[in-house]
Amino acid sequence: MKNTFGNSICLTLFGESHGPSVGAVIDGIAPGIKIDLDYIKKRLGMRAAVSDLSTSRHEADEVEFLSGVFEGYTTGSPLCLVIKNSNTRSRDYKELMTSPRPSHADYTANCKYHGFQDYRGGGHFSGRVTAALVAAGAILMSALEAKGIKIGTHISSLAGIYDRGFSDIREDILALESLSFPALDTSASEAMQTKIRDARAEGDSVGGILESCIIGVPCGVGEPFFDSIESSLSHILFSIPGIKGVEFGLGFGFADKRGSECNDAFCIKDGSVATVTNNNGGINGGISNGMPILFRTAVRPTPSIFKEQATVNLKEMTDTSIVIKGRHDPAIIHRARAVVDAACAIAVADMLAVRYGTDYLAGKGNP
Amino acid sequence: MKNTFGNSICLTLFGESHGPSVGAVIDGIAPGIKIDLDYIKKRLGMRAAVSDLSTSRHEADEVEFLSGVFEGYTTGSPLCLVIKNSNTRSRDYKELMTSPRPSHADYTANCKYHGFQDYRGGGHFSGRVTAALVAAGAILMSALEAKGIKIGTHISSLAGIYDRGFSDIREDILALESLSFPALDTSASEAMQTKIRDARAEGDSVGGILESCIIGVPCGVGEPFFDSIESSLSHILFSIPGIKGVEFGLGFGFADKRGSECNDAFCIKDGSVATVTNNNGGINGGISNGMPILFRTAVRPTPSIFKEQATVNLKEMTDTSIVIKGRHDPAIIHRARAVVDAACAIAVADMLAVRYGTDYLAGKGNP
Amino acid sequence: MKNTFGNSICLTLFGESHGPSVGAVIDGIAPGIKIDLDYIKKRLGMRAAVSDLSTSRHEADEVEFLSGVFEGYTTGSPLCLVIKNSNTRSRDYKELMTSPRPSHADYTANCKYHGFQDYRGGGHFSGRVTAALVAAGAILMSALEAKGIKIGTHISSLAGIYDRGFSDIREDILALESLSFPALDTSASEAMQTKIRDARAEGDSVGGILESCIIGVPCGVGEPFFDSIESSLSHILFSIPGIKGVEFGLGFGFADKRGSECNDAFCIKDGSVATVTNNNGGINGGISNGMPILFRTAVRPTPSIFKEQATVNLKEMTDTSIVIKGRHDPAIIHRARAVVDAACAIAVADMLAVRYGTDYLAGKGNP
Amino acid sequence: MKNTFGNSICLTLFGESHGPSVGAVIDGIAPGIKIDLDYIKKRLGMRAAVSDLSTSRHEADEVEFLSGVFEGYTTGSPLCLVIKNSNTRSRDYKELMTSPRPSHADYTANCKYHGFQDYRGGGHFSGRVTAALVAAGAILMSALEAKGIKIGTHISSLAGIYDRGFSDIREDILALESLSFPALDTSASEAMQTKIRDARAEGDSVGGILESCIIGVPCGVGEPFFDSIESSLSHILFSIPGIKGVEFGLGFGFADKRGSECNDAFCIKDGSVATVTNNNGGINGGISNGMPILFRTAVRPTPSIFKEQATVNLKEMTDTSIVIKGRHDPAIIHRARAVVDAACAIAVADMLAVRYGTDYLAGKGNP
Repeated sequence: MKNTFGNSICLTLFGESHGPSVGAVIDGIAPGIKIDLDYIKKRLGMRAAVSDLSTSRHEADEVEFLSGVFEGYTTGSPLCLVIKNSNTRSRDYKELMTSPRPSHADYTANCKYHGFQDYRGGGHFSGRVTAALVAAGAILMSALEAKGIKIGTHISSLAGIYDRGFSDIREDILALESLSFPALDTSASEAMQTKIRDARAEGDSVGGILESCIIGVPCGVGEPFFDSIESSLSHILFSIPGIKGVEFGLGFGFADKRGSECNDAFCIKDGSVATVTNNNGGINGGISNGMPILFRTAVRPTPSIFKEQATVNLKEMTDTSIVIKGRHDPAIIHRARAVVDAACAIAVADMLAVRYGTDYLAGKGNP
Repeated sequence: MKNTFGNSICLTLFGESHGPSVGAVIDGIAPGIKIDLDYIKKRLGMRAAVSDLSTSRHEADEVEFLSGVFEGYTTGSPLCLVIKNSNTRSRDYKELMTSPRPSHADYTANCKYHGFQDYRGGGHFSGRVTAALVAAGAILMSALEAKGIKIGTHISSLAGIYDRGFSDIREDILALESLSFPALDTSASEAMQTKIRDARAEGDSVGGILESCIIGVPCGVGEPFFDSIESSLSHILFSIPGIKGVEFGLGFGFADKRGSECNDAFCIKDGSVATVTNNNGGINGGISNGMPILFRTAVRPTPSIFKEQATVNLKEMTDTSIVIKGRHDPAIIHRARAVVDAACAIAVADMLAVRYGTDYLAGKGNP
Repeated sequence: MKNTFGNSICLTLFGESHGPSVGAVIDGIAPGIKIDLDYIKKRLGMRAAVSDLSTSRHEADEVEFLSGVFEGYTTGSPLCLVIKNSNTRSRDYKELMTSPRPSHADYTANCKYHGFQDYRGGGHFSGRVTAALVAAGAILMSALEAKGIKIGTHISSLAGIYDRGFSDIREDILALESLSFPALDTSASEAMQTKIRDARAEGDSVGGILESCIIGVPCGVGEPFFDSIESSLSHILFSIPGIKGVEFGLGFGFADKRGSECNDAFCIKDGSVATVTNNNGGINGGISNGMPILFRTAVRPTPSIFKEQATVNLKEMTDTSIVIKGRHDPAIIHRARAVVDAACAIAVADMLAVRYGTDYLAGKGNP
Repeated sequence: MKNTFGNSICLTLFGESHGPSVGAVIDGIAPGIKIDLDYIKKRLGMRAAVSDLSTSRHEADEVEFLSGVFEGYTTGSPLCLVIKNSNTRSRDYKELMTSPRPSHADYTANCKYHGFQDYRGGGHFSGRVTAALVAAGAILMSALEAKGIKIGTHISSLAGIYDRGFSDIREDILALESLSFPALDTSASEAMQTKIRDARAEGDSVGGILESCIIGVPCGVGEPFFDSIESSLSHILFSIPGIKGVEFGLGFGFADKRGSECNDAFCIKDGSVATVTNNNGGINGGISNGMPILFRTAVRPTPSIFKEQATVNLKEMTDTSIVIKGRHDPAIIHRARAVVDAACAIAVADMLAVRYGTDYLAGKGNP
């Protein structure tokens, strides 16, 4: 426990970096959602982000459906999808059992699993598991799209370079769908990529901040007290390896503001209630107010760097050092955006299914 | 759903600001935990924070146990505690049904509950509900204390004033227990209080950032994928009204760092594994590594300000304005620290009970 | 854990027989359900069943709402109801800590709670807790009634006396609402009551079988694999103290049948799909088929009898004997029907809310 | 939702009869449990029960581990196992979309999934899914065995033939492990098999009653109110296709008993507390008392019979008839025993993990 998330649409993840495969079971998914293999592939491609900015481990990421799909549509019964791990080199990892990599989960996994964990490539703690999350999320993203709900994420800042904020959100989300490096401003994009290449050249890594937006969620979604939108989204976001901060609306920026500066006044816009500003990120009292849901996530630098680092020898309980070998990312933030989008899709779809029932995302009529 | 939090120790909250009472049911609590009424009262006092910095609504906050306590100890069956609402002035709130207060939950509650919500004083969305959370948390805090686990929270920043960080954590937590205004540095404390008084004088409010620390959690606690320590803590933290950001370790500060600057090297200290730095806040891969668990939460300024604000008339669907009446806080951050501590206690106690069983916090022998 | 039942409408129970009160929190209940105090009182009256057939402990059973009710309607936020325990005589129970009553929970409670349990009157294991269940169920029963869903339970057999089965179900359920002793056939009713009086006269007790029917549940409710209607109903039914068997449709009667004798052929009736027989109790594959949901529950004889019984002395670990004192029921089956009805209402309301969303039972418009 | 069962050890099932495979994810399983492939195969063999008493669909039932197993032991992270469906003949099922088979889930699946369900062979409602349950249960059965907990099930009655009850339970459970047809008495076994063959010869089917026993569960396991042992076991048992009744101890037999006849007196036996009789099936107040846990389950006759049956045409909404083709079982009860054993293992392992923590079943030391 608990590799399952959700109250109505329940996602269970499994898999290890160097095991046979990673996968997901989506239980409670509505029947009649079209399986768009191209879109799933596209989303997995965003996460794979194959280029000189990423690990040289390239996976085919072919999704195989073991259940829950029939004649191209979801059946409504639990959908199991599996992505095989093909490109694994396990010889790189053997010494990590005794000498844990700093800021990786090698040591904590050992504490928790008493040496039985699959230590190769981080095992279940590897970001590899998020491939299954992205595939599951892609199915829900197309279903949400049919309800007018769109999700997009860009890199807000990286190593001192700042992207512009969301402007025309609908257009920006559309643009992000076709960007392989998710920065809205072209020059910021290039500068960020340069920073990543610089880090790689030095055997080092960089972190950054993602900014996400969800539009089209109707007013009244979310559940007090403990299943506020913020609680549900942060719960799934913080499960993504490397995420160390989540803030909604102004977030930490509220600290230096006065109430009069950041309250979001209501107004009538096109016959509906709206807010003049959106400092609270579309959420009041944990419930959606119909405005765009805005949040930012902090992504730490990849801990796999190629410099010598101090660590311990767990067998002899002595200090030692380690130089990590293998294939690693100098940054994961440009790949993480696909994971964040997917996590949002899952959490939002679940909250909608709780509020409107299990058929909310169901396709109409027989296939 | 879901006013219940937790997997093994399950906390359910109920109550409205101006209803008969607020309360909590703690299910799955171990038997034999001593009920320390003075400590509960002390913790509720920290939350009440009666002074010129807070609302003039002063509640007696007497805790009544309806079940689960026998001869001064928890029985192990569900414990229901209730705190009566005595000092309510409902006449202040009637117009809020048509003219929702900006950045309050009046509008979203109306969307969700179709006009049936108890709108008085924010109803179930009021911070008043957190009194029950603090009382429940206090019971678990004393039980955790017996296991060597301590929790403390101070105001890290408020309106441009910065407190010093944690230094000798054990001492600092002890000091915080006796501070009515939770800033570690005396001059920072005074400056912050002045900022709050200034805001109050202007009918305005301020936000800030809380920094919390949990010490004594053994290595190996937390559950991948979705019940990481970050996921569990953020879930309960974001349910607290007014919390809009949560970060662990360096959090958003990771964005401008390189991996080589922020990886936490392992070392042997006093015969045990430790980390030289603690940039990851005591958590690797979602699992505790034995170091102090460190996080910060952003608290937005109280939305109840006394300046005229734009809003809408929901009956006529027209723009209008509102001047909020009643008794309100110019800041809640100094009160929120007691809520954050309590939330931590609940989440940590639950994670420990999951890992070590329902008797983990049980008292030994018969009373 | 787990005193909470349900996925969308979540019921949490608390309380002990001789503590201050028993109560329930209903979380996820739709807004706008009218609170019909007379109906709740009537339902509690069915459970109390005050007469010479029952315990001489007579409780006023006044329901007090601590939250979730405003101006006579549910608000949609968690509803806490409390029923005070007034008529308690704790002196009767002290010796039970060392000499557990046979087939009571005294011994198992002691194993589980290490002596910290409230042992008076069975504590949390007492049937007294079901008063809160009945009150909670009554609120949902009226809400279900508005959707055309009705629930009724009669005593099918007791000590060799058999009631007639359901005939015109709607009429029978209506009749049961006004019967203080729930047997449909008058002479069976009298014979059963005589059996109970006979047992009482001999310091003994009797069990029996309840038969229940739920009509009006639409086709397609229930969730495979683990949340079949049978799984959900049996889960809540078996939590009722004294229930030791649950069967749906023919139940154990299937054992001696052939498929050709008990398959339920489909037919068109009044333009809709129906089944000619209903041997499967309205459930196929765990999902409702639109026919009446039929099940039976076995209620064991009350374990509190006034004959001398063998037991042990837990302090000295020796054999001994006990004669139970206090006030007890010679039968609980006629009272249990109100509990079974309430349990059904809760389980069915939850399954409907899962399928159709949290607003399914919501009242329309403002009060 | 909810194809997941359990609070600490969480089992998720997926798969359809004629889809690529059926499978299970076990989350929360302790690390270091040895994967005994022979034992899993043996258990699957009991369920397959290949003979003239069963369907002519013979599956290889090869278990493949996609995650959670490393070097022959569980890792502690989620274990996904998959069993491929090889021997499927989908052409047999096409007409069932319009003409649902009586007492199958064809009609209710159609109501629930609006025509998108995989209708072939019952899809997700097929007993085929229980192969994954048996494989998952086998892993936990060997882990429980190491803790001294044993589970066994025999056919108590079938078509008027009665097996003897459990006598020396340990010996009987051992014997059942090697019986391909699970009746303890040889002549009863033969008579039952004859009854099944007779039914098959007539294109018909038979049901029966299973009796199960779990020994070695310590006193104090189970959670009031809603997670009593009866509630947890019945929840998982009623999810098994074809189970229509569950009773503990005397169960429905309590109906004709007096309290004085069926109370279980306590005694000291070998220095421990025991009960003289075990009419309550080892459970008092929903909590284990240390005696064998005894229960019986009613298995209805297979609904797939080869006689002409009345049904409806769902497209034209007219009455019609159907003759089922394909390969089917004249009885599933002898196969169901393996499923019931597995379900018990899962529920008991989960209850133990809740009570004693996630490491309760963990293997000691490194592999």
